[in-house]
Amino acid sequence: MSTKIRLGILGGGGDSLIGVLHRVASSMYDSYQLVGGVFNPDFEQNIGFAEKIGIPTNRVYRDFDTLIEEELKLPETERMEVISILTPNFLHFPMAKKLLENGFNVICEKPMTTTYEEAKILKEILGKSKTIFAVTYTYTGYPMVRQMKEMIASGMIGTIQKIDVQYYQGWINPIIHDAEKRAVTWRLDPEKSGISCCIGDIGTHAFDMIEYVTGMEVKEILADLNYVYSDNKMDVDGTVLLRFSEFVKGLIRTSQIATGEENNFTVSIYGNKGGLKWEQENPNYLYHLTEDGPLKVLKPGHAYNSQLSLDGSKLPPGHPEGIFDSMGNIYKGVARAIRNEKYHPGEFPTINDGVRGMNFIEKVVESHKKGNVWVEV
Amino acid sequence: MSTKIRLGILGGGGDSLIGVLHRVASSMYDSYQLVGGVFNPDFEQNIGFAEKIGIPTNRVYRDFDTLIEEELKLPETERMEVISILTPNFLHFPMAKKLLENGFNVICEKPMTTTYEEAKILKEILGKSKTIFAVTYTYTGYPMVRQMKEMIASGMIGTIQKIDVQYYQGWINPIIHDAEKRAVTWRLDPEKSGISCCIGDIGTHAFDMIEYVTGMEVKEILADLNYVYSDNKMDVDGTVLLRFSEFVKGLIRTSQIATGEENNFTVSIYGNKGGLKWEQENPNYLYHLTEDGPLKVLKPGHAYNSQLSLDGSKLPPGHPEGIFDSMGNIYKGVARAIRNEKYHPGEFPTINDGVRGMNFIEKVVESHKKGNVWVEV
Amino acid sequence: MSTKIRLGILGGGGDSLIGVLHRVASSMYDSYQLVGGVFNPDFEQNIGFAEKIGIPTNRVYRDFDTLIEEELKLPETERMEVISILTPNFLHFPMAKKLLENGFNVICEKPMTTTYEEAKILKEILGKSKTIFAVTYTYTGYPMVRQMKEMIASGMIGTIQKIDVQYYQGWINPIIHDAEKRAVTWRLDPEKSGISCCIGDIGTHAFDMIEYVTGMEVKEILADLNYVYSDNKMDVDGTVLLRFSEFVKGLIRTSQIATGEENNFTVSIYGNKGGLKWEQENPNYLYHLTEDGPLKVLKPGHAYNSQLSLDGSKLPPGHPEGIFDSMGNIYKGVARAIRNEKYHPGEFPTINDGVRGMNFIEKVVESHKKGNVWVEV
Amino acid sequence: MSTKIRLGILGGGGDSLIGVLHRVASSMYDSYQLVGGVFNPDFEQNIGFAEKIGIPTNRVYRDFDTLIEEELKLPETERMEVISILTPNFLHFPMAKKLLENGFNVICEKPMTTTYEEAKILKEILGKSKTIFAVTYTYTGYPMVRQMKEMIASGMIGTIQKIDVQYYQGWINPIIHDAEKRAVTWRLDPEKSGISCCIGDIGTHAFDMIEYVTGMEVKEILADLNYVYSDNKMDVDGTVLLRFSEFVKGLIRTSQIATGEENNFTVSIYGNKGGLKWEQENPNYLYHLTEDGPLKVLKPGHAYNSQLSLDGSKLPPGHPEGIFDSMGNIYKGVARAIRNEKYHPGEFPTINDGVRGMNFIEKVVESHKKGNVWVEV
Repeated sequence: MSTKIRLGILGGGGDSLIGVLHRVASSMYDSYQLVGGVFNPDFEQNIGFAEKIGIPTNRVYRDFDTLIEEELKLPETERMEVISILTPNFLHFPMAKKLLENGFNVICEKPMTTTYEEAKILKEILGKSKTIFAVTYTYTGYPMVRQMKEMIASGMIGTIQKIDVQYYQGWINPIIHDAEKRAVTWRLDPEKSGISCCIGDIGTHAFDMIEYVTGMEVKEILADLNYVYSDNKMDVDGTVLLRFSEFVKGLIRTSQIATGEENNFTVSIYGNKGGLKWEQENPNYLYHLTEDGPLKVLKPGHAYNSQLSLDGSKLPPGHPEGIFDSMGNIYKGVARAIRNEKYHPGEFPTINDGVRGMNFIEKVVESHKKGNVWVEV
Repeated sequence: MSTKIRLGILGGGGDSLIGVLHRVASSMYDSYQLVGGVFNPDFEQNIGFAEKIGIPTNRVYRDFDTLIEEELKLPETERMEVISILTPNFLHFPMAKKLLENGFNVICEKPMTTTYEEAKILKEILGKSKTIFAVTYTYTGYPMVRQMKEMIASGMIGTIQKIDVQYYQGWINPIIHDAEKRAVTWRLDPEKSGISCCIGDIGTHAFDMIEYVTGMEVKEILADLNYVYSDNKMDVDGTVLLRFSEFVKGLIRTSQIATGEENNFTVSIYGNKGGLKWEQENPNYLYHLTEDGPLKVLKPGHAYNSQLSLDGSKLPPGHPEGIFDSMGNIYKGVARAIRNEKYHPGEFPTINDGVRGMNFIEKVVESHKKGNVWVEV
Repeated sequence: MSTKIRLGILGGGGDSLIGVLHRVASSMYDSYQLVGGVFNPDFEQNIGFAEKIGIPTNRVYRDFDTLIEEELKLPETERMEVISILTPNFLHFPMAKKLLENGFNVICEKPMTTTYEEAKILKEILGKSKTIFAVTYTYTGYPMVRQMKEMIASGMIGTIQKIDVQYYQGWINPIIHDAEKRAVTWRLDPEKSGISCCIGDIGTHAFDMIEYVTGMEVKEILADLNYVYSDNKMDVDGTVLLRFSEFVKGLIRTSQIATGEENNFTVSIYGNKGGLKWEQENPNYLYHLTEDGPLKVLKPGHAYNSQLSLDGSKLPPGHPEGIFDSMGNIYKGVARAIRNEKYHPGEFPTINDGVRGMNFIEKVVESHKKGNVWVEV
Repeated sequence: MSTKIRLGILGGGGDSLIGVLHRVASSMYDSYQLVGGVFNPDFEQNIGFAEKIGIPTNRVYRDFDTLIEEELKLPETERMEVISILTPNFLHFPMAKKLLENGFNVICEKPMTTTYEEAKILKEILGKSKTIFAVTYTYTGYPMVRQMKEMIASGMIGTIQKIDVQYYQGWINPIIHDAEKRAVTWRLDPEKSGISCCIGDIGTHAFDMIEYVTGMEVKEILADLNYVYSDNKMDVDGTVLLRFSEFVKGLIRTSQIATGEENNFTVSIYGNKGGLKWEQENPNYLYHLTEDGPLKVLKPGHAYNSQLSLDGSKLPPGHPEGIFDSMGNIYKGVARAIRNEKYHPGEFPTINDGVRGMNFIEKVVESHKKGNVWVEV
């Protein structure tokens, strides 16, 4: 008798990288069994993909509505318990909405929706249900990000006074400078991708990370975006000034035209007693700065880490874990929540993260379009 | 209809870390399905563990012999196709031997056996069969280790003239200085652990890595081991001078008393045109030194890497993968071999690696005991 | 017969660190001989200091005016040829003015003056004279900063599209949070220190560096400063958005409350072909990012560097030089200029750097006070 | 009245890099005045060089013997107080001998002599005099090397149990593989360079560093050298196993054929309570490893450092100092000794370091030639 949670997946078929990430993550702690889903819009490809990844095809459905209909016919003990949404962004909202309305637990890729309005609707529906809803801001699952959160919460760097988060990539550089390419790239098409490219895709990670590790809320923002070409409709670079209160400030720096950068996401938080720094590309190091002592470099798996951090390491110190392991930790937390086991609220991002993320995107664009003025978040 | 390879596992139950590593690795490319095994010597715990990890208990066997007996009764299309051996070292040989004799493919943890003699016997048996046999020198699965191998093979650093490999840990420090602890630690007990602790456990990784990336064979060694206390029977530190030919030399440096080190395994290979350096704790960086140009830092997933390296990355550059992903690559290679698909010989270590590793251990101890003299490997 | 340039120094006595820096820098290339000056306001201390550092006291003067008067009496072949101004900021302008008016070459610490107005006056006076005037933005003397400048000039990263410069320190943290201390710290007193603390002290370094390495001019800025306490009159943290043209943007990030940071000055320049990154605390590494090749790490002293860079290294690669050597390079360039030898305009910062720096400070404060609006520079 | 110490220099003329290093070092703390010497064997060049570096030519002598003769005629208050020997190695001994016999203080480049025998003679002569004798193992002047020494002395890493020092360069690679070049390179000519190239030049630095920071003495060594070509008479690579006592071991690894390495000198010392690591190319970082806490990274200039370390920094933390500053610290210590001021024995290497260094070189070659056997040091 298997105790694994029955998982369904929407999207993630074919060569989808996000599909690989979620499947591996779901397997990391022996907690989930992938039982079916709708991986591709084309039914034949859908079935072919299920065979390729070696799962039974009997619960691989023609489309999302069929999935809901058929699964609801199954007894609760057989029905999918949680469904991961990995489809293109504009489908997140209708799918999540219907899933919640029908009592399914949901793991949703970010951005959670395409508008703030949709996000608030989802939150309202969720509030009336008893289901679990997680948004996969993957980077919050890293052990040293969790450790950063716990150290800040325990006052180790004192009162926060300065925050600086960078998310630099360079992948759009060859696209943006090629008129033909930039005309056909879906990321640069507001119809397909929402109102923002750079802020929507990576700025939200930065925003969520700040609120995740500090437990503070951004109150006001002032943004300056860069579209690089007049005929380009979407931001590919942007800086956002942040205010948490009159004298506590910060900034988010994002770019997709930082040529040569891969996925350079760094977080620096300074308090009146010390600072903490972390880099996504070297995720197993957490730098703790103090005024009067040597720099300390914390690494995963050591007893000096918090329980939340230690829970995210599978092997002893010195055996590097990466982004798959980080996503695995999020799935692990969701499994605990589904099973009604005790878990730490830092184990996975919730609908609140999703809602605030959508609000952030809209307010950033508003600030920019109004001429780089302060806007409340 | 599932196309997954049916996998059985011996050992790896309870809190076993190596068990987690192998289970996750087997799931990374949707290629294996764990169908049973013998996870614990105690049958009740065995069943309990299977339930905990959510696999059916019908093929969880009382003991190894029962497993063989029962699996052989199953039709070939249902029988376990490959079995991973994660048990204590002294069981590797009898289990691997019987598995091979009965036609099972085998994935065996290192050290492959407890003596060179046993290793040679396995090799002989394997030579008569058609089965696949892999030894999990995990670190060879990292994309940048594979890239190092390919760059050396293609002559990018010229003729190799100097090799220096370090494997430093500090975990045995608190044990070795405590007379009671060192008397009861199985790693320091030759009965349980073979004739060497430090060289057997980590020196072999260093040795295999050298032969893996260079394609060269060590010809002679001179070793100096350190037992630290007179009543300690096993080496916990050792340096091994290497000769590949009259003027091509190298060294392996290992320690388990390098206090504060975690798993500091570094590889430096210098040729007459350049050098390559790699560090296990930061596995996604490969340093390419040249005489007249800037240092180059290669990272996984870029088109400039070899196919063997690229095959080992699942996500785009900047998304760090780690040791689970490295082991996953080894399992992926074994899957291809089992399925008779085309694969690169660098995808997984074979019995030759296992045999040479056992020989190395014995020759190192011999050199040391004879008074630090040169011994042929 | 000595060919050394006769150097006088104003300020830099007692325990002055800037005094040590300039004296050592002046000695690095056997080009200068310190012949006198006014090191301390107190004459007795002045003489005592001269004795301590082992220079003859006959040209150690009671005050600045006496120095001018007495030196002018000497024949030109004996007179001080260049005078370094290391006094408190408010003295820079009157001293520099009088020195220029009397035909002395000048090396002036930054900030060059206390107002933009003063700076423009100095520039006007200099325009009518034939003297050499250098402003010691020390960091521009590093070999890898020079290399960055030359690589950008030669088009190696293409057209610049994004600039991000950070200058983070933490030293004011313990002061700012102590009401008594912040009331008596001269850096926080506008009377003594000008209208800005953080931007004036370190923001100007960032600004000058950007214009130095790129050869471009900042056109507009939008600034947000942080004073942390209501009773504090000076900024201790500030972010400045930069516009070079409609679609070429950047930012300067400065802080003196980044607790635990020492002198973390980093420069990142991205073009449409690649990027360059440099860190002041590890000044001997220049990171060259490209879209399709490995990261390259350039180091000083290699033949692949430009002549301007190579001229700034005294020893072969691998022998780290530091900030004294960087300042030494600036002195070396000034010596060449004084001797009418050929030199590269990148060898030392000039009055233009000083003038633009003062303008920058004033415009940043203006932008902030007007409510974080765009201001032309 | 100048209080500067009157310094003479032997060698270091023309384009000599070591000459620049010593001149700058002597100027760093306002303690020395270069008054003359013999910079070049050719008298005309000698005078020309003095003029070029701007010193009076009246005490620039035709040759070494003339210098001694003439200086002795001067009253003690005018006579050179210390003389730095920067000539080719084979001249060190006769010059140092005569200088000591005539009462001059001496600063001598390494290797101190060409044989152990000579070194012992110098020591004997010095023992009968009251002069100061320093050997410029430059790297011991770095603040973080000094900090390492003090931390070990104070027991912060407990009892030392493992030492590993690397000194890798690649500069001889293009020479060694070119038969013509290797025949004419003086470093590879035993007549000019002594019995060892790699060990003599850089191995001695490693050896001295170990004894400097640990305060322990190497008792026995076993060496394996590499000459790479049969017709090459000098080692260009070598590994030396070290024994300090039965159970305390270490190794020195040196190479000049580690292609692409610049001056990669690293020191790792492990005790039973922790470890310390330092790298010459990034000299402002000291890594302190412990069993149960985070890695600590110490930097110069902080109050947590020892007095000996702090004495070696001129600027506040974050302003990197380099190898010139390190040599400056050695000169500073010698100045204190000459002036009979209080100083720490760790401020400069003495004749004991020089004597042990020469012994080490000879014993290493002996061990190698006898077939890689243990030899007492």
